[in-house]
Amino acid sequence: MNGARLIARLRAELGDSSVLVDPDVTASYSHDMMPLADRAKPLAVVLPADVEGVQATVRACAEAGVPIVPRGAGSGLSGAANAIEGCVVLVLTKLDRILEVDPGNRLAVVQPGVVNLEFREAVAKHGLFYPPDPSSYDWCTIGGNLATNAGGLCCVKYGVTTDAVLGLKVVLADGSLLATGRRTVKGVAGYDLTKLFIGSEGTLGVIVEATVALKPLPQAPATLVAAFDDTGKAGDAVARVVREGLVPSLMEIMDATSIKASEKYLNTDIGAGSDCQALLLCQSDLGGEPAKQELAAIEQLCKDAGAAFVYATDDLSEGALLLQARRVVLKALEVYGTWLTDDVCVPRTRIAELITGCERISERVGLRIAVVGHAGDGNMHPTIVYDAGSEDEFRRAREAFNDILDLGLSLGGTVTGEHGIGKIKQDWLAREIGPVGMRVHRQIKAALDPENLFNPGSMFPME
Amino acid sequence: MNGARLIARLRAELGDSSVLVDPDVTASYSHDMMPLADRAKPLAVVLPADVEGVQATVRACAEAGVPIVPRGAGSGLSGAANAIEGCVVLVLTKLDRILEVDPGNRLAVVQPGVVNLEFREAVAKHGLFYPPDPSSYDWCTIGGNLATNAGGLCCVKYGVTTDAVLGLKVVLADGSLLATGRRTVKGVAGYDLTKLFIGSEGTLGVIVEATVALKPLPQAPATLVAAFDDTGKAGDAVARVVREGLVPSLMEIMDATSIKASEKYLNTDIGAGSDCQALLLCQSDLGGEPAKQELAAIEQLCKDAGAAFVYATDDLSEGALLLQARRVVLKALEVYGTWLTDDVCVPRTRIAELITGCERISERVGLRIAVVGHAGDGNMHPTIVYDAGSEDEFRRAREAFNDILDLGLSLGGTVTGEHGIGKIKQDWLAREIGPVGMRVHRQIKAALDPENLFNPGSMFPME
Repeated sequence: MNGARLIARLRAELGDSSVLVDPDVTASYSHDMMPLADRAKPLAVVLPADVEGVQATVRACAEAGVPIVPRGAGSGLSGAANAIEGCVVLVLTKLDRILEVDPGNRLAVVQPGVVNLEFREAVAKHGLFYPPDPSSYDWCTIGGNLATNAGGLCCVKYGVTTDAVLGLKVVLADGSLLATGRRTVKGVAGYDLTKLFIGSEGTLGVIVEATVALKPLPQAPATLVAAFDDTGKAGDAVARVVREGLVPSLMEIMDATSIKASEKYLNTDIGAGSDCQALLLCQSDLGGEPAKQELAAIEQLCKDAGAAFVYATDDLSEGALLLQARRVVLKALEVYGTWLTDDVCVPRTRIAELITGCERISERVGLRIAVVGHAGDGNMHPTIVYDAGSEDEFRRAREAFNDILDLGLSLGGTVTGEHGIGKIKQDWLAREIGPVGMRVHRQIKAALDPENLFNPGSMFPME
Repeated sequence: MNGARLIARLRAELGDSSVLVDPDVTASYSHDMMPLADRAKPLAVVLPADVEGVQATVRACAEAGVPIVPRGAGSGLSGAANAIEGCVVLVLTKLDRILEVDPGNRLAVVQPGVVNLEFREAVAKHGLFYPPDPSSYDWCTIGGNLATNAGGLCCVKYGVTTDAVLGLKVVLADGSLLATGRRTVKGVAGYDLTKLFIGSEGTLGVIVEATVALKPLPQAPATLVAAFDDTGKAGDAVARVVREGLVPSLMEIMDATSIKASEKYLNTDIGAGSDCQALLLCQSDLGGEPAKQELAAIEQLCKDAGAAFVYATDDLSEGALLLQARRVVLKALEVYGTWLTDDVCVPRTRIAELITGCERISERVGLRIAVVGHAGDGNMHPTIVYDAGSEDEFRRAREAFNDILDLGLSLGGTVTGEHGIGKIKQDWLAREIGPVGMRVHRQIKAALDPENLFNPGSMFPME
């Protein structure tokens, strides 16, 4: 039997302990954090300890005709890491070394299995800053961040994962090792293969190393909170900040539903007694007087837009307390049921319309929808709450999930700002980029992975 | 005859005035600014007025089996826009409209034929800033900037062209129109095709529109100049600035040869009487007190590194005068002969080694080599001066050009920081990225342009 022969070969090449087949064990490696995505039973879960082990796994699977689903910690929200029937799940978490930190050139070389937080802390010791900070930063891995081009709270000022990467090493479908990019901050020798692999969701190759550019460590943040009795006014405030050219290091928005959930969970009054329909949270990491000036300018713009209440502080623990309201939203929603978070990105002038549109969808499907988002870049996460025990509520949650994507597209946005397409939005990708875009995607996929070895069915089905 | 039929078809579809065949006229469209690159006689030069005209040209050429060399103003320095025998040169300069400026979302939509400077000025009227500023910014076009992923003086703080682009429209080899990317600042739906086409030097498709992200207009610059009696000390100053996390908006370096040429040309004493072996020029665009502080910090680091002389000013015209020394170098070198500028990018800690290495090459080939460069990102432009009338000097200039690339690679750098591979560095690309990298390049090229219609022989030969 083909599967048994493959397992034997993998065990011989990687060692028994690196090849897991017990269904009770492999089940935990068969899915990420997206409940809507299909998952199936893998043939085996393989955890190589080095690049050679990844190459050996790819070669063995290619020869056996067994598809590979690469994954990191499994914090993803698109099902891209979900196993398909009979596949090998290739787990990169054992490639967990920081190979180099070079302060003189402000770069580091890192393996995919390093946890984001661990990497941040390691470079911070050299006074350096790795910006990408997805909310799962304390357990997600750099490899998953690369595969999904992860974002986070930092993006409004520092961009997404792809903006931080100088070069990659990638294991291709024939097991060969490709080096992309370079160690210099500039370079135009050949096609930008680095950025082609970043965000390709494991469909083109397996990323086994990254050289990343680091920033100077920013100053400790000063924080501002602004409450609005009307969503439109909050949206107007965001548009004013963008138009005035202010670039805070964080700019988050919460709608009335998420504010109420947080208030209840934290047992506090966030809107300071006002009828708070929307909350803006901003930070400046310029430090000292420049930070004060930046937040003062934002405060004025919030007031001009009609804020009911604005408060700024450079006290660190007070700032952390204010941000708490945003950070606990998902936990706070669990009081009401299971959450399902969506991910659309709209032009920054359309944020208020996205929020009011989600209110309409919530009324129609009869489910609570809380909208939180990265207001500074228009990337919104409407989060639907449903009873996981009710098939009907699950159906309505799925309906709302899709209605939100439809709304995002109609506002000139995209169906995913940072979570990816994975195994839930393939049809939406086709709708967003059209037939010519899909054809080019298939051409590139077929050129690099002709046998459809890597993560088949993720991002888009092959013809 | 095939060629005659193609010309007749192009004239019928685009109008007579858009199809040029007079050799005296087409000659001026047959090359860019790189003297080392081969050029040949095109069959015709076509100047479509709109996207449909580009599509018609591509379809007609594809059917006739006649290759296309796309080009803008021809300011390139790699021969990528040079005609090959019997090709159609597709000139994009008539697609010269700025289609939209959206201050609320800080973006603009622009056609490829718009001159960089014209675009900068148009968005500046809205208080917005388009950073990429190649030195030919007053005549190069946005399309050429996109095709080569152009850089400039801004890169140390603001990155290169690709960092400013949200989406593209591209005419593919079958004449169909591909839209890549989006209008939002974030988005991960599908592969990053935008950045694949940027810097692809016209080998994958013809870019006919770009949606670009704009920055807030920075403050007027304050300027600092530092003179060093030793190249190593200047290199040390750069490394200290990088390590300390300072990000000036400009950081240029000049070696002794370029300083002397500028001094002679401007009839001034740049090094203030000192034996000036290297000059650093920095600017801060933070404005007011923050700019003063930033330059004061850089001044201290320069002194720590052993600068013989440092001077800073926030006077605009004085700053422009100081920058003058850098801006006139190429003109100043023309006193001695024809210049040939090279383009390597090295880790920022290796700049001094690059400069002293160029001194050795200069001695060996017996030609003057002046090194100027974007010190802040390690992108150096050693410029060889030779007598264009002497075959022997031309041969030695070419030898020095290649020796500099070899030196750049040996210092952990790349063979092109911003000018591209084009028709002069194909072998060097192969050497830099190796056989696996070349195979992937060919696979992508073959997937998107199976008949090798677009700019064949540029960047790399097909197998």
